[in-house]
Amino acid sequence: MLCFINGEIKNINEGSIGLKDLALQRGYGVFDYARTFNRKLFHFEDHLERFRRSAKELRLDLNYTNAQITENAETLLKGSDLKNPALRLILTGGYIYSPSGNFNPNFIMIAEELPTYPEENYTHGVKLLTYEYQRELPHVKSINYLNDIRLDPLRREKNVFDILYYFQNGITECPRNNFFVFINDVLITPKDFLLHGVTRKVVLEMANKYWKVEERKLELAELNSADEAFITSTTKSIMPVTVIDDKKIGNGTVGMKTQKLIKLFNDYVLQFSR
Amino acid sequence: MLCFINGEIKNINEGSIGLKDLALQRGYGVFDYARTFNRKLFHFEDHLERFRRSAKELRLDLNYTNAQITENAETLLKGSDLKNPALRLILTGGYIYSPSGNFNPNFIMIAEELPTYPEENYTHGVKLLTYEYQRELPHVKSINYLNDIRLDPLRREKNVFDILYYFQNGITECPRNNFFVFINDVLITPKDFLLHGVTRKVVLEMANKYWKVEERKLELAELNSADEAFITSTTKSIMPVTVIDDKKIGNGTVGMKTQKLIKLFNDYVLQFSR
Repeated sequence: MLCFINGEIKNINEGSIGLKDLALQRGYGVFDYARTFNRKLFHFEDHLERFRRSAKELRLDLNYTNAQITENAETLLKGSDLKNPALRLILTGGYIYSPSGNFNPNFIMIAEELPTYPEENYTHGVKLLTYEYQRELPHVKSINYLNDIRLDPLRREKNVFDILYYFQNGITECPRNNFFVFINDVLITPKDFLLHGVTRKVVLEMANKYWKVEERKLELAELNSADEAFITSTTKSIMPVTVIDDKKIGNGTVGMKTQKLIKLFNDYVLQFSR
Repeated sequence: MLCFINGEIKNINEGSIGLKDLALQRGYGVFDYARTFNRKLFHFEDHLERFRRSAKELRLDLNYTNAQITENAETLLKGSDLKNPALRLILTGGYIYSPSGNFNPNFIMIAEELPTYPEENYTHGVKLLTYEYQRELPHVKSINYLNDIRLDPLRREKNVFDILYYFQNGITECPRNNFFVFINDVLITPKDFLLHGVTRKVVLEMANKYWKVEERKLELAELNSADEAFITSTTKSIMPVTVIDDKKIGNGTVGMKTQKLIKLFNDYVLQFSR
């Protein structure tokens, strides 16, 4: 496995950051995570655009062009012995910072094996647990996933696949996934106080051709009317949700519209990765 | 400058962590910061107790005894060429983690020069700006200071020394300081949804001998009745606050009771560091 760090490509075990870095000392940094299909980077421009937007919000300069980043990303992926390559990008606060001054960020890319999920998650759907919480600066993909990891014992205890955040009665997202429901043939997904995923964007574009689509506040109580539900993310694509807080969504099986979306997405990916 | 990393003492520039560490990738880690007076570590046991408590909340094991940590801390401080030595402790999520498994934390201590503040901050007092915000897991001293650093441009724009967080109409803390007011000879400090500082604890113990002391919810509107205000932290000790949101506290000068507390604290420190 290879990494890119400030212009150099190294073995992952030789890459390191110093103890003065602001990511280590203050959790200050942004990241993004791109995947491949058939070894081709998927929607990498969208990930780079979001990465730059996150960096800008935290005043971190990314001194590489998209072309430079993409070239090095491809070198990393080709040079790494990975079955299903994915790429983690991190931009840290760096070693030097004064409240009145500038950052000197460290830019890191890491080639990684894409995580996989059991096939039954897709055929039977997964369970979620609602949890009242609003992430800090959710529109910035920062490295702060403190609460996500902290909640792992709760996931195990309640035997759920993931947590579904809501706040002031509106559903937002899972810590690493976007959330969608079908209610009466309308596809609804929360719009504000969350991170807009790349897969979310692709799904919205595809769905628009077949159903009415609404990006808006989704009240917690609306889950009672939901016929189908699913989550999306770079690593999970479209994963059906059949139970939330012990209550079945629809009849508790993977719905026809979700199945159709999964097929549309798979076709799109096939087309892309040919 | 020296650092301690997983049992070894090194020059700070030779210390590093690998790119797989969960602090770098997910902002997952806890820290603490202890200072010296006259080169003697101040209330180090209190810092260690809080550090262990924070680590426990994030399920991170600290596999060193207080005696081992203290011995290495003193070696670091003695071996570093620092005028005013201070010590940063960091416990990271480490390189290996599975949602169902354990962490393998990296334990780091760094000898640092204590930051100093202009004398006029103490003789004239500083300005604060109120800001609606509730930190994530505030009782855990995690490395997450994303919002603190993000707000630096606001501090500069408004020409204030620091931000004072409030939430649901109660004042909590500054990002790195506790907050106190005197109202009619009663010393009041917020109790919940904040990090309990070591200096806060010392100040409460000292103040108890001279005034009525209340740890409770402090409403934002009560600032209008405040005769005096100050902040406390390890690096700042007791720093008077004379203006909040462009409104003077009392007559806008450093109050007599705050002056008395500063003198009591200085005497306590002299006694300690003799």
